[in-house]
Amino acid sequence: MSKRQKALIAVLSVFLLFFGFVVTRIGVKPVNTVKAAKIPAGEYDPAVWGQYYPLQYASFKMMADQSPSPTGYGGSVKEQKSIMQPEILTLFKGMPFSKDYSEDRGHLYALEDLRESKRIGPASKGACLTCKTPYIEQAYNEMGWGYANKPLNELMAKAEHPVSCANCHDPETMNLRVINPAFIEAQSRRGIDVTKATREEMRSYVCAQCHSEYYFEPGTSKVVFPWDKGLKPADMYAYYSEMPSGFTQDWQHPDSKAAMLKAQHPDYELFATSTHGKAGVSCADCHMPYVRKDGQKYSSHWVTSPLKNLEASCSSCHTQGTAWLEERVKTIQDQTFQLQHTAGQNIAKAHQAIQAAAAQPGADPAELARARELVRQSQFYWDLLSAENSMGFHNPSQALSTLGQSNELAHQAIEAANQAAGVTRF
Amino acid sequence: MSKRQKALIAVLSVFLLFFGFVVTRIGVKPVNTVKAAKIPAGEYDPAVWGQYYPLQYASFKMMADQSPSPTGYGGSVKEQKSIMQPEILTLFKGMPFSKDYSEDRGHLYALEDLRESKRIGPASKGACLTCKTPYIEQAYNEMGWGYANKPLNELMAKAEHPVSCANCHDPETMNLRVINPAFIEAQSRRGIDVTKATREEMRSYVCAQCHSEYYFEPGTSKVVFPWDKGLKPADMYAYYSEMPSGFTQDWQHPDSKAAMLKAQHPDYELFATSTHGKAGVSCADCHMPYVRKDGQKYSSHWVTSPLKNLEASCSSCHTQGTAWLEERVKTIQDQTFQLQHTAGQNIAKAHQAIQAAAAQPGADPAELARARELVRQSQFYWDLLSAENSMGFHNPSQALSTLGQSNELAHQAIEAANQAAGVTRF
Repeated sequence: MSKRQKALIAVLSVFLLFFGFVVTRIGVKPVNTVKAAKIPAGEYDPAVWGQYYPLQYASFKMMADQSPSPTGYGGSVKEQKSIMQPEILTLFKGMPFSKDYSEDRGHLYALEDLRESKRIGPASKGACLTCKTPYIEQAYNEMGWGYANKPLNELMAKAEHPVSCANCHDPETMNLRVINPAFIEAQSRRGIDVTKATREEMRSYVCAQCHSEYYFEPGTSKVVFPWDKGLKPADMYAYYSEMPSGFTQDWQHPDSKAAMLKAQHPDYELFATSTHGKAGVSCADCHMPYVRKDGQKYSSHWVTSPLKNLEASCSSCHTQGTAWLEERVKTIQDQTFQLQHTAGQNIAKAHQAIQAAAAQPGADPAELARARELVRQSQFYWDLLSAENSMGFHNPSQALSTLGQSNELAHQAIEAANQAAGVTRF
Repeated sequence: MSKRQKALIAVLSVFLLFFGFVVTRIGVKPVNTVKAAKIPAGEYDPAVWGQYYPLQYASFKMMADQSPSPTGYGGSVKEQKSIMQPEILTLFKGMPFSKDYSEDRGHLYALEDLRESKRIGPASKGACLTCKTPYIEQAYNEMGWGYANKPLNELMAKAEHPVSCANCHDPETMNLRVINPAFIEAQSRRGIDVTKATREEMRSYVCAQCHSEYYFEPGTSKVVFPWDKGLKPADMYAYYSEMPSGFTQDWQHPDSKAAMLKAQHPDYELFATSTHGKAGVSCADCHMPYVRKDGQKYSSHWVTSPLKNLEASCSSCHTQGTAWLEERVKTIQDQTFQLQHTAGQNIAKAHQAIQAAAAQPGADPAELARARELVRQSQFYWDLLSAENSMGFHNPSQALSTLGQSNELAHQAIEAANQAAGVTRF
């Protein structure tokens, strides 16, 4: 074979390869996963978005799943938490969480679970809707924070869709965005302009805008995140101790008469100060891992426990196998639950000890006040971890340290109650 | 230029490159780092080994360093631990650790620190030498476990060298080895044949043979590791609760009269059950990282806190920078110290409460016994973490979980003491 013949064969081979590739692609319609359409602003129906983003929408609908987490903690089973921790009924006595405190199901059920909750009533405010629906964007655009003080029922009638696409995506550009003004304001007070966030930061901020601790400002019901001094439990407690905007308590405990705080799921605060968080991992890295279908790679929108899909979530970084990973998580969760349960039981005893001590004639008011302050802090620490959705996994050492402190404070509260009543003990 | 000329130039170029490489290597004497010599069995002088392994020996001698760890915990400063934790003086009342409990310096000082310790006296046994010198190999070869019951002074006179090369290396093959019979026996009882260990396992076993919890068998002074039920604090406590080989206590606390256990540095137990340990990281990966000198790569024999050389130790896996790494470790250590200090203070109170309760006429013996059992377990848990050398870092969640339990048990002991004395409290 001459050199020319060889060259000709080579050129022909390349051409045939290219031709074959083109032929096999005819009829394969590429499925774009980004910017497939310009969805009009104010479109809150995920089914409309789903027409253009079928893979994401299909995974989003998997949130209908109501299975438990394989480690036995969290998951999406609507079950009263007081079954595993009966002390909850004492701790939240005199406030709505003693009536109904069940595990949340997925985002799909956000409105349904709110409607069915025994915690809400005719006096409930629009503020409760802040993290339940993308409609909150429109409400805030129309009324500013005024929406928060409207009757919940009035707003609920206008909210058709639960947490979905528009909560986290700009409909026109499909860029990640945040719409909860409480989050935007809290970050601003910390000197963080969320409009300048990187994409990786936004992959946590979209979650952080709701999975955080907050309170309702007295009078206005405005939602406020207590982050001005930092994100750690001690920072948030210090913030509340200064009684911001006149906020002194969520309720008074009917037994101990302590001015109590109800903590709410500080998933972001715990995670952001953890080793994973500080290493730059985002919420979505674990809760919305990249998956493949029909040759397309996309971010799963089945937002749930990563334990339900360890292969996709943890295994892209940690290659020890799913059984290994699950054992690691379960170990940390078991340790956390044990200390949480212990602390919760002792806080319940503290409320009762303070009540009994206060009933004694001549009980020392200063010592009683000290006991009430101790049980307030103790329960806030316990509640942060109890309300948090990872049973300690988002930040194991912070979780166990905080619960250890909570338990110690509960014992100190009991001690102070006995002091107040003049009980001399060894 | 013809094809032949081109081919000639190509061949010449390759030849010249090879020739140049050979010339530059002439005069470069390769320094072997393994199997440079056959050192005779029984040679315990590290200086002799050092002649053949100069890089390892030079780094070994860096253990003369007596600097603190940058996080303020551990390190190699010979300082009484009771300065930071005065409760230690109460907790170890009636036993040698109340007289002298200073931070250990490096391996180089193992014999010197033992000789100078106020904890030893004429009654001290040879067992104390088990982890202080390679001479223990010869002692065990000559006497079996008999060496453990000889007077310490008699054996000490024969031990010329502190922990060094022969503790971990076979002199003839330079393979890693373990010489502490207590470790070999404990592993055997767990079904682990250490002679079949992989090299990576041996890179932990050489440390584990000494950095572990142990007790002296009554009568024989034989060293025993309490590992038969597992390596976790609860497993080891369960082992002791069955009073193995008649062992019931290390000493009786003079105040509470509780039968106490003195725990010893369970560095290996904590680490082996941690995420790092379970991921297959070895002790040497962090404490003896690979370093380079004169073009040679070798394992540093400056066995110390990895915090003193984060660049070499942690950074080969964790690339976030040394400041980031140090902050992560310090956070965990601060959390651990806080809970350890709290628990220690409450255990001290428990001893006093039991003493006071027992002094009451008609104190309930069953409740007193329960109080003493509780303070025994509480202090054992506290002591495991207090004696452990990483201030929680070897296993953050196990450390904090164990200390949280320790603190709770101390409060339960105080409560039981009050019950025993008939003190009614709220």
